[in-house]
Amino acid sequence: MIVILKDNPDKRQLDNLIAWLESMGLGIHMSEGHSSTIMGLIGDTSTVDVDLINALDIVEAVKRVQEPYKNANRKFHPDDSVIKIADGVEIGGGNFQVIAGPCSVESEEQVCEVAMGVKAAGAGLYRGGAFKPRTSPYAFQGMREEGIKLLLEAKEKSGLPIVTEVMDISHLPLFENVDVIQVGARNMQNFELLKELGHLDKPILLKRGLSSTLQELLMSAEYIMAGGNEKVILCERGIRTFETATRNTLDLASIPLLKTMTHLPVVVDPSHATGIAHLVKPMAMAAAACGADGLMVEVHNDPARALCDGAQSLTPAAFADMMDAVNAILPHAFKR
Amino acid sequence: MIVILKDNPDKRQLDNLIAWLESMGLGIHMSEGHSSTIMGLIGDTSTVDVDLINALDIVEAVKRVQEPYKNANRKFHPDDSVIKIADGVEIGGGNFQVIAGPCSVESEEQVCEVAMGVKAAGAGLYRGGAFKPRTSPYAFQGMREEGIKLLLEAKEKSGLPIVTEVMDISHLPLFENVDVIQVGARNMQNFELLKELGHLDKPILLKRGLSSTLQELLMSAEYIMAGGNEKVILCERGIRTFETATRNTLDLASIPLLKTMTHLPVVVDPSHATGIAHLVKPMAMAAAACGADGLMVEVHNDPARALCDGAQSLTPAAFADMMDAVNAILPHAFKR
Amino acid sequence: MIVILKDNPDKRQLDNLIAWLESMGLGIHMSEGHSSTIMGLIGDTSTVDVDLINALDIVEAVKRVQEPYKNANRKFHPDDSVIKIADGVEIGGGNFQVIAGPCSVESEEQVCEVAMGVKAAGAGLYRGGAFKPRTSPYAFQGMREEGIKLLLEAKEKSGLPIVTEVMDISHLPLFENVDVIQVGARNMQNFELLKELGHLDKPILLKRGLSSTLQELLMSAEYIMAGGNEKVILCERGIRTFETATRNTLDLASIPLLKTMTHLPVVVDPSHATGIAHLVKPMAMAAAACGADGLMVEVHNDPARALCDGAQSLTPAAFADMMDAVNAILPHAFKR
Amino acid sequence: MIVILKDNPDKRQLDNLIAWLESMGLGIHMSEGHSSTIMGLIGDTSTVDVDLINALDIVEAVKRVQEPYKNANRKFHPDDSVIKIADGVEIGGGNFQVIAGPCSVESEEQVCEVAMGVKAAGAGLYRGGAFKPRTSPYAFQGMREEGIKLLLEAKEKSGLPIVTEVMDISHLPLFENVDVIQVGARNMQNFELLKELGHLDKPILLKRGLSSTLQELLMSAEYIMAGGNEKVILCERGIRTFETATRNTLDLASIPLLKTMTHLPVVVDPSHATGIAHLVKPMAMAAAACGADGLMVEVHNDPARALCDGAQSLTPAAFADMMDAVNAILPHAFKR
Repeated sequence: MIVILKDNPDKRQLDNLIAWLESMGLGIHMSEGHSSTIMGLIGDTSTVDVDLINALDIVEAVKRVQEPYKNANRKFHPDDSVIKIADGVEIGGGNFQVIAGPCSVESEEQVCEVAMGVKAAGAGLYRGGAFKPRTSPYAFQGMREEGIKLLLEAKEKSGLPIVTEVMDISHLPLFENVDVIQVGARNMQNFELLKELGHLDKPILLKRGLSSTLQELLMSAEYIMAGGNEKVILCERGIRTFETATRNTLDLASIPLLKTMTHLPVVVDPSHATGIAHLVKPMAMAAAACGADGLMVEVHNDPARALCDGAQSLTPAAFADMMDAVNAILPHAFKR
Repeated sequence: MIVILKDNPDKRQLDNLIAWLESMGLGIHMSEGHSSTIMGLIGDTSTVDVDLINALDIVEAVKRVQEPYKNANRKFHPDDSVIKIADGVEIGGGNFQVIAGPCSVESEEQVCEVAMGVKAAGAGLYRGGAFKPRTSPYAFQGMREEGIKLLLEAKEKSGLPIVTEVMDISHLPLFENVDVIQVGARNMQNFELLKELGHLDKPILLKRGLSSTLQELLMSAEYIMAGGNEKVILCERGIRTFETATRNTLDLASIPLLKTMTHLPVVVDPSHATGIAHLVKPMAMAAAACGADGLMVEVHNDPARALCDGAQSLTPAAFADMMDAVNAILPHAFKR
Repeated sequence: MIVILKDNPDKRQLDNLIAWLESMGLGIHMSEGHSSTIMGLIGDTSTVDVDLINALDIVEAVKRVQEPYKNANRKFHPDDSVIKIADGVEIGGGNFQVIAGPCSVESEEQVCEVAMGVKAAGAGLYRGGAFKPRTSPYAFQGMREEGIKLLLEAKEKSGLPIVTEVMDISHLPLFENVDVIQVGARNMQNFELLKELGHLDKPILLKRGLSSTLQELLMSAEYIMAGGNEKVILCERGIRTFETATRNTLDLASIPLLKTMTHLPVVVDPSHATGIAHLVKPMAMAAAACGADGLMVEVHNDPARALCDGAQSLTPAAFADMMDAVNAILPHAFKR
Repeated sequence: MIVILKDNPDKRQLDNLIAWLESMGLGIHMSEGHSSTIMGLIGDTSTVDVDLINALDIVEAVKRVQEPYKNANRKFHPDDSVIKIADGVEIGGGNFQVIAGPCSVESEEQVCEVAMGVKAAGAGLYRGGAFKPRTSPYAFQGMREEGIKLLLEAKEKSGLPIVTEVMDISHLPLFENVDVIQVGARNMQNFELLKELGHLDKPILLKRGLSSTLQELLMSAEYIMAGGNEKVILCERGIRTFETATRNTLDLASIPLLKTMTHLPVVVDPSHATGIAHLVKPMAMAAAACGADGLMVEVHNDPARALCDGAQSLTPAAFADMMDAVNAILPHAFKR
């Protein structure tokens, strides 16, 4: 870490700063330039609070050279992490997985039917929302505990491991038999929840927040990993920008970039990112092409009951078509 | 609500939609145009799920005429809400309040000294962070339970009611004697937490999320109010944009706009919004000028111990100077 | 177009509005709802100024059903446009073209060497900057007229048609033998320039502005097409967001979305979008996978002279590797 | 400027870099740290191209200590610039000016009537659009040359100096008697135009681009000043963000921040920034409170002819009311 000091820094403040940095076990290398003095901090600076230093009157600027994440950092774990979800179901390190299922769990019939449909088309995991974060308190909030029971039934029938979203620490006991716990975009910086998930021995699917940088995403992964749970799967699902033609802006360059920053698997959710069903297939193909480790796709089962047609959901047939297209891309996909 | 249908909508899907809307007690007024058919929905549409309708194959577009928030809506509560925080401490309806104090509670000495300082300068409420949301798991996470105890001591000594942030439902019992519970920007859409706060009889300071629209802010207030707790104070604290010269972009136009949308009080946090100490005073003045109901300002007490100098914190003397400047503006401030 | 009126609109203002709309040849269909009146405008509303109507005191909201662009609209031109650039060089309608070359033209040797290199690797067009838009007046502004001469030399030697950027109307005479004139992101809404280009019979490569919506991009294409020049190639090159890990955020979902909105070819510039050389290949592959009609890629020739190494430029060898990867994707790419 | 090198940089590339930097007259101070080497560049680095250095293989990061703008930099011109527009009309250094007038010039009657109205209410300059940048080629493009003639008539009748926007270099001869030439947000980086304006001896009102940082705004001012024209007035007019409740997001913190970065006057345009008439007054008050040197406000004259009611325009009476409110704030406004 480089700390650039202002001209003629206050002597007492500078001594305080040096003493404080040394108390953290850091070595300091001073370099006096023409119009500014530079301090080079030597040692493990990943736990140093940049904001705190930046805030000092005597500091002009702080520049990290080392990344603030350790467990998630590819520099210290050069090989891809391969996360085992169930027998024969792994993700990362060349194992590509498609997670598919309905936005919300609505009924036993629906949840089992879609599960069999997506399994037939080649999905490796089954997803469904039991707890639903909704902008409006008046909108359907999900089937909650009952929804998780239905997902577990679908798991038993289909043999597919299941992924579903947690919204609060207090609900965690319900997730005991869930295979992958999803942290939604709105909870990416719910740090108390992340800490709790760090104590589990279960894969966590961590979605990028709507206005989160990639570094913040990795710092949230770091919260989970610092607690001991290294099974984190990252998910790019679009960021909020000025463009309103799609629901969010899918940031696909984040895929190859994250793969250089971290060893964790990265999946892409083209359904939520675009909010438009006919964009799911091309974006799934693009995600596969640029090196994603998997996809998360919304599939519904009931074309007749129009109200289920999420604008962003595919029918099982459209999903199967998408799978064919993605499978044709995969052998030619980007590899680091 | 206006629903614009596509050309030649599928008859069965249209019948399904009409039946579903009527089952919610809505009247439907069909208007067949040249190239599209328009449905006008008559009745209380605040609980209708726009996304669900928008998702239908037969729907071209949906346009809300009525706002999706009710309890927070000024249309139904034309008068400003006045929220009583303690004896003699009210906010809203012409009552301007300044909430001041340190970013983090660090020690008994610090917390009490700053309290007396900001009280002397005219602050009406005292703030301090006990639970601290930090991007890094390696950064100081706050004194937590111990921090709240120190805040309560400062309350007793200074007589100022206190405001502090909650990060998880499970911590709420510790907040029994806290006067105002703050929901931070990162938790603005932690819906389970909002629901729980809706069952309390205590003022809630709800900060706008980093990438939240004003309507989403009001929908989060609606979560709290729908549970029965109408004591919600909104806080504009900057949004995330491409501009990096300030930490966030303070959206001051939101103040007069929110005041037309809702009857709830709105305060401004210039410290977090800008992240730069010398911008706090002018932005506090601007916020007062355009009709804010109050301010939330970071003040630290220890200029000698440089490390406390949050880049965004004022000394007590600078805070007193800011208060003078704001008090000179207030008699001339914008009134609806 | 749907105009939603406020309750009890002023009679005189309403009459004025109706008279004005009818004077534009529009039919009006009034539909009185419970709490609001809706006007449906029948006829060609593409030339109606939405802002003007939205601004009226009596209007609650305006909703376009019809798009404001005509010449660029796929509804009126269902087939893909195929734009002929030179003999045997077409783009669109299944013809995929790669435009490659250095950021700036620097010398005869450089410009010719790179041209031969990218031709050998399979590029169909050659690009190079003669006029360079630079944030700083102190930065290199390009070789200008001399640069265009060198590009024309490279064209003669390599046989590749050339693409280069125009920055001002007054420079247009220099572009007579340029095959494709590029409009840079900063000039996407330089409307006087667009109008002038509308009078040429030459393909125009129109780059999306840093903060432009897709609709605004199409409206700028419409400026050119309205003047009679229908040879417009659109270029997605990243938008400005809060994320700073990449220079801009490449919005790849815009590709399949634009292809539904317009019949014009769409190319992707992964070099400028990401600003990072090692992201160019995966993003080129992703762009090809989701249906782009071509790519625009920066290639430099002088690995020894380090200062030429644009952070975003590939060497000819890396470009050839990228071409192989893209060519492997193309047979499996998304088709509408 | 600080250049942080990667570990074990290629010797030849490093020598090339050093030679190149020395050829620009810069001194170099090498500081070898534990895991990285830092080069401190000594001398005038304002003309050094950061992107070019950042792009080098051997460079980890570059950090400017010195700003890239010189003429606009307050460090080198500590006193506020006071720009004389006409006899008795100055802006900056404590001189507050309000620029008011209609969005578009429409007729002689309109342009003169509004001029007399805003003069009576205390405006110091008169504005009106003759050349209008419009998103759609089908929207009204302004009265152009005829519009400028009408503005000059209004100037003669009212005695107010006039401000109007230029859209292309070729139109400049028409602006000979215009007092202040406005560069619109879309042309903030039309560098050829900026260079041309640098050769005039006439004040330039430079509006911030929709997605421009403050540093980019100052670099565009630098383009004009580098040509010799130091009479630049900056204008904050809102930036594009995800929030759609207002047309743009007015970034008022930019006012006190710009005032520390530059000596140039800064005005605020609350009309374009918000796009909502009832927000103009409170935002004008807030702008005055935080230290703006002036305002730019849209005023129309014809409340009866509803179609003129720009959503963002005030009537002359509302403008007079705004002026009273702003004048009450001014004596209490923030001063650096």
